[in-house]
Amino acid sequence: METGSDPIADQLRAALDGPWREVREKAREHLDDERLYGDPYLDYRAARARVLEQMRLVSQFGWAEKGFKRENGGASDPGGAVTALEMLAYTDLSLWVKCGVQWGLFGGAVENLGTARHKEYIEKLITLDLLGCFAMTETGHGSDVANLETTATYDPGTQEFVIHSPTPSARKDYIGGAAEHARVAAVFAQLITGGESQGVHCFVVPIRDEQGNDLPGVTTSDDGLKGGLPGVDNGRILFDQVRIPRENLLNRYADVAPDGTYSSEIENPSRRFFTTLGTLVRGRVSVGGAAAAGARVALSIAVRYAEKRRQFADPDTGEETVLLDYRSHQRRLLPLVARAYALSFAQNDLVRRMHLVQTGQDLDPNAQRALEKRAAGLKVAQTRHATRAIQECREACGGAGYLTENRLVTLKADTDVFTTFEGDNVVLTQLVAKELLTSYADEVRDLDALGWVRFAATMTRDVIRDATGVRQMIQRLRDRSDQTVDEGDLSRREVQLQLFADREDYLVRTAAHRLRARAKETGPFEAFNNAQDHILAAGTAHIDRLVLEAFIDGIADVEDDEARKLAEDVCDLFVYTTIEENQAWFIMHRFMSVERAKAVRRGVNELVDRLRPNALTLIGGLGVPEKMLHAAMIE
Amino acid sequence: METGSDPIADQLRAALDGPWREVREKAREHLDDERLYGDPYLDYRAARARVLEQMRLVSQFGWAEKGFKRENGGASDPGGAVTALEMLAYTDLSLWVKCGVQWGLFGGAVENLGTARHKEYIEKLITLDLLGCFAMTETGHGSDVANLETTATYDPGTQEFVIHSPTPSARKDYIGGAAEHARVAAVFAQLITGGESQGVHCFVVPIRDEQGNDLPGVTTSDDGLKGGLPGVDNGRILFDQVRIPRENLLNRYADVAPDGTYSSEIENPSRRFFTTLGTLVRGRVSVGGAAAAGARVALSIAVRYAEKRRQFADPDTGEETVLLDYRSHQRRLLPLVARAYALSFAQNDLVRRMHLVQTGQDLDPNAQRALEKRAAGLKVAQTRHATRAIQECREACGGAGYLTENRLVTLKADTDVFTTFEGDNVVLTQLVAKELLTSYADEVRDLDALGWVRFAATMTRDVIRDATGVRQMIQRLRDRSDQTVDEGDLSRREVQLQLFADREDYLVRTAAHRLRARAKETGPFEAFNNAQDHILAAGTAHIDRLVLEAFIDGIADVEDDEARKLAEDVCDLFVYTTIEENQAWFIMHRFMSVERAKAVRRGVNELVDRLRPNALTLIGGLGVPEKMLHAAMIE
Repeated sequence: METGSDPIADQLRAALDGPWREVREKAREHLDDERLYGDPYLDYRAARARVLEQMRLVSQFGWAEKGFKRENGGASDPGGAVTALEMLAYTDLSLWVKCGVQWGLFGGAVENLGTARHKEYIEKLITLDLLGCFAMTETGHGSDVANLETTATYDPGTQEFVIHSPTPSARKDYIGGAAEHARVAAVFAQLITGGESQGVHCFVVPIRDEQGNDLPGVTTSDDGLKGGLPGVDNGRILFDQVRIPRENLLNRYADVAPDGTYSSEIENPSRRFFTTLGTLVRGRVSVGGAAAAGARVALSIAVRYAEKRRQFADPDTGEETVLLDYRSHQRRLLPLVARAYALSFAQNDLVRRMHLVQTGQDLDPNAQRALEKRAAGLKVAQTRHATRAIQECREACGGAGYLTENRLVTLKADTDVFTTFEGDNVVLTQLVAKELLTSYADEVRDLDALGWVRFAATMTRDVIRDATGVRQMIQRLRDRSDQTVDEGDLSRREVQLQLFADREDYLVRTAAHRLRARAKETGPFEAFNNAQDHILAAGTAHIDRLVLEAFIDGIADVEDDEARKLAEDVCDLFVYTTIEENQAWFIMHRFMSVERAKAVRRGVNELVDRLRPNALTLIGGLGVPEKMLHAAMIE
Repeated sequence: METGSDPIADQLRAALDGPWREVREKAREHLDDERLYGDPYLDYRAARARVLEQMRLVSQFGWAEKGFKRENGGASDPGGAVTALEMLAYTDLSLWVKCGVQWGLFGGAVENLGTARHKEYIEKLITLDLLGCFAMTETGHGSDVANLETTATYDPGTQEFVIHSPTPSARKDYIGGAAEHARVAAVFAQLITGGESQGVHCFVVPIRDEQGNDLPGVTTSDDGLKGGLPGVDNGRILFDQVRIPRENLLNRYADVAPDGTYSSEIENPSRRFFTTLGTLVRGRVSVGGAAAAGARVALSIAVRYAEKRRQFADPDTGEETVLLDYRSHQRRLLPLVARAYALSFAQNDLVRRMHLVQTGQDLDPNAQRALEKRAAGLKVAQTRHATRAIQECREACGGAGYLTENRLVTLKADTDVFTTFEGDNVVLTQLVAKELLTSYADEVRDLDALGWVRFAATMTRDVIRDATGVRQMIQRLRDRSDQTVDEGDLSRREVQLQLFADREDYLVRTAAHRLRARAKETGPFEAFNNAQDHILAAGTAHIDRLVLEAFIDGIADVEDDEARKLAEDVCDLFVYTTIEENQAWFIMHRFMSVERAKAVRRGVNELVDRLRPNALTLIGGLGVPEKMLHAAMIE
């Protein structure tokens, strides 16, 4: 790697590469291959065909196997699978999405919701002998999965399920693979047997024959052009009384006997629903990771350009000034680089947690639920960061940034929908906040607004902040923070953590109070809606704290002293800019004096000054090899 | 128009349509034509061909003529030209750019920088018998126009100029029309005669023959795909000793005699340069207007979708909730609608001022300079708004928002570069601030950093805020504000104005002090760079004040009481959200108490509550006919 000439960058990269360092290193070799890059000059049909070819190349890397259990022909290394596939974001996000749909969503649904009788699907889907899609979202229902309209009605006479779209809004929509390539679909539908609905379940439904023609009763159509991701064939599926064998129900958590009797080991229908969805957490983990990876590519390009591009002469020297020597340019890019570091560490931590849960090494009964909350929160943080960072990079590169040959516009267009898919960011932030408010209690998890407003009123201060999964060092730092923040030195980690935690606690606590107070007056929906901005702020504050903890944790893994010192400055910049963005809140709620807030602003300026000479080292640490940047303006 | 059924919307639209109301009404008729819409399924070559055809249709509307003087075969209605062309943003921004390049930039350069001997070009370019391009930006220099590298060396032997690109970075780049369609270019180059450089001047240079082949010495190439604007053939031009007649110098402000003697009525070379650039102000006025128009389309689509789309059941009623009934959704969209109103009024005001200056009706010697500053400021405000608003609209429409058929992604991609072209927003904000700091004094306008830092130190408090162009009503409101803001009622316009003006004054004043203090210690570049974020904040505060004044002014033109009351609420929402975005600053600088800041936040919530039932009326007022929205999801 070219960055081999910068040992500090190598040290940082090793830390950011995280637990699956070798997987990333190997992936960098695999992906240094022109055949795996997108070609923006192809029309969308040609782009789709190319991506399908590229998938066949990727299928030879052994990454798909990692995602599946040994008993299904896999390698039982979910962390490795997510990490390896994330690296595709360095080449082409259409390819990443297609692989993610095939092996992550479709494959994941079959493996996690199916049983031994579905093993044969998995063997075939790993090798791409069976192409599938994940048919959850409908035209009328995206975020509200529980109210999907597609029905799967059991017919004991033939021992078949009848899959049907009863209304136009029941049409499956935006489904990657549905427009062209998929032969079968994992269809989420309301299971009805004996005239009774049992809620949403998942079924394997063949949709096309070998020639690619729709099967009888199936009508697929094409979502056509999108803002980006031209290589992904998103489409729609309508079902008109399509019959599938009883065995095509993915029956891990519930089954229907030949006579139509419904059974499930999970009594509570709502808990069953959430258990079903919970197994799909890998999708959210992956989306956040790929978005952040895309942002790393963009930041690597923009910082390198800012180190090269000159504009306007410095009157002191007569020489034209490099863009990154301007304070405003430093302030545009370096805080985003700092956030990229923060999120890389947070993603590594998340993938590790996911791996431990999914390989059965984490036996904490709350681990799965905590993982889901964390995955939702980090999906929000990372996709929001990607949207913002890539946009800023484009603008910071001016007209050159707008040319497709410099790649930023493609990254922007491709990642744009990441704030939406695998859970809209607003809905997910709310979900995180709701979990905070309800303190993870099983009983209220599935409550409607009424229920959880009532519940929130009963919670105590202690249960709000969960200590689950906080590593010892963080706990020690927390414990050490015996002084109030107002007196503390903001450059100390314990004070920073305290400030982030105080913000979260305060927002959660006051949101709960507000809900309780209003619910009596206005009814729960009104109460909730009236406090929605407050609730969302609580969720965001929680996410910020998780990210900071992961950053602090991650720095501890940097071995070299000089590299660690640099990482500490980067962490400070992340902290100071996060505080700066929320300084009004801190001041208004008396967590920070005006003088201290002004010091934070000066601190940001001092930190960008200090980090500026190390900008290329920091970019080296982000781990996108220079030769993979593929941007004409920096070549 | 369909909005005819909503008389309040009609009233608002009439006010927002502004001084060229009839032009807009007529344009709505012209543009209700499928032939004038972009076809996103065309590849970029076909898209370019289509746009060229569309230009021929537009050339029949009489809009191009409006932009030129009577003596050149035009209609001497620059305000009408800018307004009419802006309406193209409702159909296709590629078409808008192509028309703007041909008639605004190329045509504008020939008319404003040329003399009678260039009249024949104008007649031909109006009718599209001559297709031109505007070759200012180079690969190496965009914002820093004074240091363009292309040379135009006069050869008295043949009475020709020799146009030459001495370095690779002297290549003209990103030039609309250069890749395919343009036959001639208005080339900006350093004029050299008698071995002496006289600075940047503009020349008419033929670049292609009738068959579209490059002329000898000219090498054009294609910028290829971009983030958007597929119908615009941006390209590059390299000149290798290309000879043009002496008469091709656009000689309004300077000329070269046959013997090579240089003469100009403007002695100061720097003043000459800025006078030259100043005549091109119409480009900036237009870009801001088109960006804001694009944002109006996006907001119209997103709000209509938010009124239609339902997700999650209200537990109180069991009915699914319309998106716009969610507080978070109201807070996402309605403040952007309010800002769209503010900017529409500000743009109308700007176009009126431009019209008066360019038709010789405004005889104030400072008018041109004040116009340039205002145009720069509003270009920043409107393009920034477009980027932010269209992004928010896309996300607020979820997966549907990502489909090209719903138009938001095309609007985003097409307007994305508007923050860059006709002046990078950071550079322009700085320019506005610099003008504020130097109080418009001719002598320092062209100073390098050293000079204007020195100058800033001499200015007095009084000169900072210019009263130029403030209409009487605003002045009266200002005068009436005899109480300090802290005591005033924030719902009163004079208090709002005072708050905005105080922020601007304070920022300008303290930036000047800071520059003076630092310049002694560190030298001017360091001093400037160290204060750059501060300087940019001063520019932004000035722009915010201008926009607010225009909004207040515009409301006064709403005749119907009910409509005006609604507009007043919209204005309040604009004010409150602008304050909310800057609340940390107001608190930290003691312009606002914490209690008042909290009241502002509550005020925003109250205002979105109050405006929510009128959302469709407000959208109607924005003036994009429903049938021109062309978004499948709301049809």
